[in-house]
Amino acid sequence: MSELVAQPVVREIPPKDADLSAWYTAVCLKAELVSYSPVRGCVVLRPYGYGLWENLQKHLDLAFKETGHENAYFPLLIPESLLLKEADHVEGFAPEVAWVTHGGNEKLTERLAIRPTSEVIIGVMYAQWIESYRDLPILINQWANVLRWEKATRPFLRTMEFLWQEGHTAHATAQEAREETLRMLDVYKDFAENVAAVPVYAGVKSANERFPGAVETFSIEALMPDGKALQSATSHDLGQNFAKAYDITFVDADQAIKHAYTTSWGMSWRMLGAMIMVHGDDRGLRVPPKMAPIEAVFTPIVKAGDDRAVAVAHDTAKALRKAGFRVKVDDRDQQPGWKYAEWDLRGVPVRVEIGPRDVEAGSVVLVRRDRKKGDPDHKTSVPLAGLERHLRDLLESIQVSLFEQARAFLESHTFVVTERAEFYEKCKSRAGMIDIAWGGRAECEAHVKAETGATTRNTRPLDGTQTCVACGEPATVRAYFAQSY
Amino acid sequence: MSELVAQPVVREIPPKDADLSAWYTAVCLKAELVSYSPVRGCVVLRPYGYGLWENLQKHLDLAFKETGHENAYFPLLIPESLLLKEADHVEGFAPEVAWVTHGGNEKLTERLAIRPTSEVIIGVMYAQWIESYRDLPILINQWANVLRWEKATRPFLRTMEFLWQEGHTAHATAQEAREETLRMLDVYKDFAENVAAVPVYAGVKSANERFPGAVETFSIEALMPDGKALQSATSHDLGQNFAKAYDITFVDADQAIKHAYTTSWGMSWRMLGAMIMVHGDDRGLRVPPKMAPIEAVFTPIVKAGDDRAVAVAHDTAKALRKAGFRVKVDDRDQQPGWKYAEWDLRGVPVRVEIGPRDVEAGSVVLVRRDRKKGDPDHKTSVPLAGLERHLRDLLESIQVSLFEQARAFLESHTFVVTERAEFYEKCKSRAGMIDIAWGGRAECEAHVKAETGATTRNTRPLDGTQTCVACGEPATVRAYFAQSY
Repeated sequence: MSELVAQPVVREIPPKDADLSAWYTAVCLKAELVSYSPVRGCVVLRPYGYGLWENLQKHLDLAFKETGHENAYFPLLIPESLLLKEADHVEGFAPEVAWVTHGGNEKLTERLAIRPTSEVIIGVMYAQWIESYRDLPILINQWANVLRWEKATRPFLRTMEFLWQEGHTAHATAQEAREETLRMLDVYKDFAENVAAVPVYAGVKSANERFPGAVETFSIEALMPDGKALQSATSHDLGQNFAKAYDITFVDADQAIKHAYTTSWGMSWRMLGAMIMVHGDDRGLRVPPKMAPIEAVFTPIVKAGDDRAVAVAHDTAKALRKAGFRVKVDDRDQQPGWKYAEWDLRGVPVRVEIGPRDVEAGSVVLVRRDRKKGDPDHKTSVPLAGLERHLRDLLESIQVSLFEQARAFLESHTFVVTERAEFYEKCKSRAGMIDIAWGGRAECEAHVKAETGATTRNTRPLDGTQTCVACGEPATVRAYFAQSY
Repeated sequence: MSELVAQPVVREIPPKDADLSAWYTAVCLKAELVSYSPVRGCVVLRPYGYGLWENLQKHLDLAFKETGHENAYFPLLIPESLLLKEADHVEGFAPEVAWVTHGGNEKLTERLAIRPTSEVIIGVMYAQWIESYRDLPILINQWANVLRWEKATRPFLRTMEFLWQEGHTAHATAQEAREETLRMLDVYKDFAENVAAVPVYAGVKSANERFPGAVETFSIEALMPDGKALQSATSHDLGQNFAKAYDITFVDADQAIKHAYTTSWGMSWRMLGAMIMVHGDDRGLRVPPKMAPIEAVFTPIVKAGDDRAVAVAHDTAKALRKAGFRVKVDDRDQQPGWKYAEWDLRGVPVRVEIGPRDVEAGSVVLVRRDRKKGDPDHKTSVPLAGLERHLRDLLESIQVSLFEQARAFLESHTFVVTERAEFYEKCKSRAGMIDIAWGGRAECEAHVKAETGATTRNTRPLDGTQTCVACGEPATVRAYFAQSY
């Protein structure tokens, strides 16, 4: 027993290339992002994982507010009769709904669904709130937990309960609703690329992949190291479908009573899963600085009883915190090598080494997590006096570098294909994002899926007249195909 | 129909003194803090109400982090078998639990409770995470929705689903756990008084009012204008009760395996209900500046086509926002009087009037929401040049003034009583906080409740030897009695 207490937990993880799935699960658990829970399909988001979520929230919430949105909170439970009003929607979600049938010791007269998403309850409220065109647009976002019945459990990627945000807006015209849908798609793309450092393709989902009840669904799609795509956020133009089902009407300036046009858009903690898979390496996480709960960790070294480095580390960390940095001092009584491995595993962007000799020289050594031992810029000694500026520059450089690495991967794994055989082969071999001229036919899409496992990720306008690479009919769009999470 | 569109909604509310309950409901609805929803017992927290919640979150979250806590997120659903392990706890909560019995089309083999609170699921996880004394303390907070089956609905005060935070900590010793319990009680008292401007009495709950499963429960209690107390937050020392039920053990430095000591503490959106009732007046809300979604609203006046005031208002608001103020410009095409009533109803602390004459004079008029027409300091003209400093001072002054008014009310409605008859009479007549030497006997407490409707709010140590004012047995504590929400 005594050895168990004295020894830090072993945190080794399998190599990323050999088995991405095993690597991913090990990293999520051993970096203490999540724990499995005794509730099937549900994970616990531990403090370090929640720190990632808080940074996602901070950035997205600011972007939502800058685009005129306010937050609100709607009930968790939705009466069954309300859920049934939008036919496509209920068909899409009914198999995934958890039902409350008893309150205390009493059986309910009507079942209540735990929200799988909130279009229904929010639509009902909008119908009450909106009277005239002066009440439009309504621009609301909700940060919430939602629940979709699931048997599989993969941290962030597939869980029964998950955290997300869902925006819900109502507009007077179809054009305004479409503009809003695209504006929020842009907000997501900007967040993914400039905060999470995950490059994405933005575009339109095929009819088959559309949100139940939407007129048009847009998505951003990232590419994982195993060649599979991961849908990272969606933005839906709901047209008047929900307005008609839930009676969201307004008196327009011309005195006519009209149905509003609504949108909804969401990003969940799935985005964290994409970020983890895209950037991680064999040593663990590599967290982009803007998302990092800890931007820099001090690992002071005590030698022969000389603990001056610990004091300097604490003083310096305090000053950096005052300047707005998120920093931590690891002064635990453990071997330096073990500490380095621990912070590498957790993906802290910069490690600050300081020992007695550094104290005397008035300097520290900055170690970049995004580089490897032997890389020329892996470690830099910088004077304590200029640390703040150096650290700021270094964090910026790491942020950019992680994005550039990911972009290079996405680009080198995106294949513009013009031959049918090559297209099927690349889809089957999970080569990456396969970019073709496509006819948009559901039968064609189904055939590709049956033969290769790949689906359309999203589409964009086509230049000129071409034929569909997958089936030879006239092409209508350009589409990315890929296998996907 | 055309008149309906042109006219703003009537927002009149009944006088506060005549019927506090009617006033309260009207304010919550007409100031657009909440809407009733089609889900029994559940309300929607609308953007302006959510703005209050965001400010509560911002202040409390910072205080939690400054005291070493981190956020995490635990599952919404709790398997019934786990809930049953702590006998007192399950007895206390079982009648209030909503049960999930079906997932999709499948009947579950075990019912899942929607969390009424999270001691159980968090206890189970702590048992997994904690191995040695080195893992302690664990200091975690969760921001979450919880659900307790309720038939009545009163916005913020009594709803089936509500938003709250729940802290859950584990410690190596009883003393540390008790210190934590008291530390968080202090955090709550500080928040209530210095942010929400609601004075409170902090103390120990009687055994009868204790949290199910706790060794000791502490609370802060506020006094409402109708003489009823409102419990605004609780902090529980759970001793080893949950550790024993859920097997939270650790290997101590002496190699012995011991049960941990745990605490939990929570504040919900109920605190907003207290704040609304304590400060509001016949014109509507009066929001303390630190809690205000909008600290100051500009109501520029256009006269005879001269709209320079609108431009100046926007420019000035922009500069104030840059300086960190939360301000808004109301440039809607409505009568000034209607706008004033609207912002009074919403309780914005400062209204900034600006018309053509003010533009020429280079000044604005600041109007305090906490004062009435005719009060000497109701309105002040200040030069635009010094607006930032004036506004900052004014907001601080309003914050203090609201607290002082509420404190004067609490003090004038707290009665130190030494005679039995007077005690019973004051309890019955809902005089306020009735402060007596009390024997702490459950029979005595039950008798007071049966006769008067009043209960112990909380207790504190007694000086010297006295007899219980309520029953004549030896007194053990001083206690506040009151009727309560």
